[in-house]
Amino acid sequence: MTEYSIGVDLGGTNLRAAAVDQDGKLLAQVSASTSPEKGREHVIGEIVDSIQKLRSKQIQGRFAGVGIGVPGFILMEQGIILNSNNLAFLENIPLRDEIENRLGAPVILENDANAAALGESWIGAGADVDDLVLLTLGTGIGGGIVYKGHIMHGFLGMAGELGHITVVPNGNPCGCGNVGCLEKHASATAITCLAELMKVTPHPNPTAEDIFKLARAGDVKAQQVFRSMGEALGIGIATLINTFNFPLYLLSGGPLPAWDYFAPVMLEQVTRRSFTFRNTKTRIEKAKLGNQAGLFGAAFLPFQAQRDRL
Amino acid sequence: MTEYSIGVDLGGTNLRAAAVDQDGKLLAQVSASTSPEKGREHVIGEIVDSIQKLRSKQIQGRFAGVGIGVPGFILMEQGIILNSNNLAFLENIPLRDEIENRLGAPVILENDANAAALGESWIGAGADVDDLVLLTLGTGIGGGIVYKGHIMHGFLGMAGELGHITVVPNGNPCGCGNVGCLEKHASATAITCLAELMKVTPHPNPTAEDIFKLARAGDVKAQQVFRSMGEALGIGIATLINTFNFPLYLLSGGPLPAWDYFAPVMLEQVTRRSFTFRNTKTRIEKAKLGNQAGLFGAAFLPFQAQRDRL
Repeated sequence: MTEYSIGVDLGGTNLRAAAVDQDGKLLAQVSASTSPEKGREHVIGEIVDSIQKLRSKQIQGRFAGVGIGVPGFILMEQGIILNSNNLAFLENIPLRDEIENRLGAPVILENDANAAALGESWIGAGADVDDLVLLTLGTGIGGGIVYKGHIMHGFLGMAGELGHITVVPNGNPCGCGNVGCLEKHASATAITCLAELMKVTPHPNPTAEDIFKLARAGDVKAQQVFRSMGEALGIGIATLINTFNFPLYLLSGGPLPAWDYFAPVMLEQVTRRSFTFRNTKTRIEKAKLGNQAGLFGAAFLPFQAQRDRL
Repeated sequence: MTEYSIGVDLGGTNLRAAAVDQDGKLLAQVSASTSPEKGREHVIGEIVDSIQKLRSKQIQGRFAGVGIGVPGFILMEQGIILNSNNLAFLENIPLRDEIENRLGAPVILENDANAAALGESWIGAGADVDDLVLLTLGTGIGGGIVYKGHIMHGFLGMAGELGHITVVPNGNPCGCGNVGCLEKHASATAITCLAELMKVTPHPNPTAEDIFKLARAGDVKAQQVFRSMGEALGIGIATLINTFNFPLYLLSGGPLPAWDYFAPVMLEQVTRRSFTFRNTKTRIEKAKLGNQAGLFGAAFLPFQAQRDRL
């Protein structure tokens, strides 16, 4: 029998929800606002309404349930957001159970980077492998680890905090209390920060895209910024390869168009720092699903939970 | 019905073999020489003879099979040693099948650090958890990752090469081609090397134990050596915690008696570099089984393979 599920990508300012079938085909999609100033009750209502809107579309097949990707730490068993910078007003309430009760259908909460990694593993760049690591390069760096087709959670759901592995022991300070975290040297934010340090552009607040355009136009300082970013990324990825010996490591996020400017140094570092990489067919590639990865990964969760119960 | 298995710990100069029951009780143990100068045929004969000697001891119960821990890379599916510094003469031959044929019983080859991690997980310091990482501090640093009670192998059996994660990007050179590998800053060998650099003792070739005794006697330079080692270890373990969010990280090997001299700096680094560590009950502890860990882990392999088939 055909089935469908609904994936939700919950962000700090808006949410997207999509009905997806077992083969990963997008059947319908909606979006809504999640502005925190409207309050907790309003946002929970928007989540539930978006899901109901999709269900009312007369989609054929049995409804398998809902997966929701959330930027933050999730207590998986309890279905509670423990900590979320962008959705603090949803912390420490029984969010999953609340939505389940209103829908009368099973709901799974998941960290957004984990959901994105699962999405890539399901129907994206990792569809041909069972194990992969995804690094999402944005304001910070999120990580998701998929092993034997399932997200690795660790004992409290905090696995995959790959933005906070140390790549420069005395490097840039991080809000987490550490110095030299990967995300302080290789995220989109780190790129703009390095560009400001280098005075790449006279304009204040350049974006990673601005720096990329300058690099492409031949600006030597902008190119140096991406080399520095690539070096940090290479140190981090080499550590992941030596640890996991997975066949695939994926990168996604805003800085991806600058691949040709950061990837050569990244690969040089990985080659030097991982004999596993040198001696195996390990792939480091761009993710394929862009900002839809988390939505598809969230939608896959109910299908996977169902299979695991069998 | 009671059952027993035989674990073998194959080293560069000798081997140990033990018959063990399903509860991890040691029933009988033998040892033999594996000197490479005696040749491949002799060493394979010693392995088989040791196992037969144990089987002839009239041990009660069904014989579940043999697990063999080997220092090197194993191609798990093929049962072949791909690379072993200490047992190069056993590389690239169908070693598992050869021993299976001679014994008429199932044999599993496994990397020795992986086997040690599994042993600690079965009946050692990790018997109360499902997930752990073990670092064995010796000439180098070996790593074993146990997840949901099973060794993580990666796609080619090379997972857990934790001695080669970069902890000092411009650190000491390593035979693997990298600089700043964990094992070049925190192994027993690294300790003696640092001690020589520091001129801790006027004698040539001090051992890690010599340096430990000096530290305990109040030698400031010897204490500095262990602080440097603890710092490198702390950077590495913080990365593992941020990656895995496992409940337990174990250390074993020669430098363990110097715990009081390296652990405070190690824990200081981990505390600083991992908010997961700061916010969870993550344990960093000494392994319990000493140099028997690999033997017990190897013995557990046939039991586990049997269970997994059910």
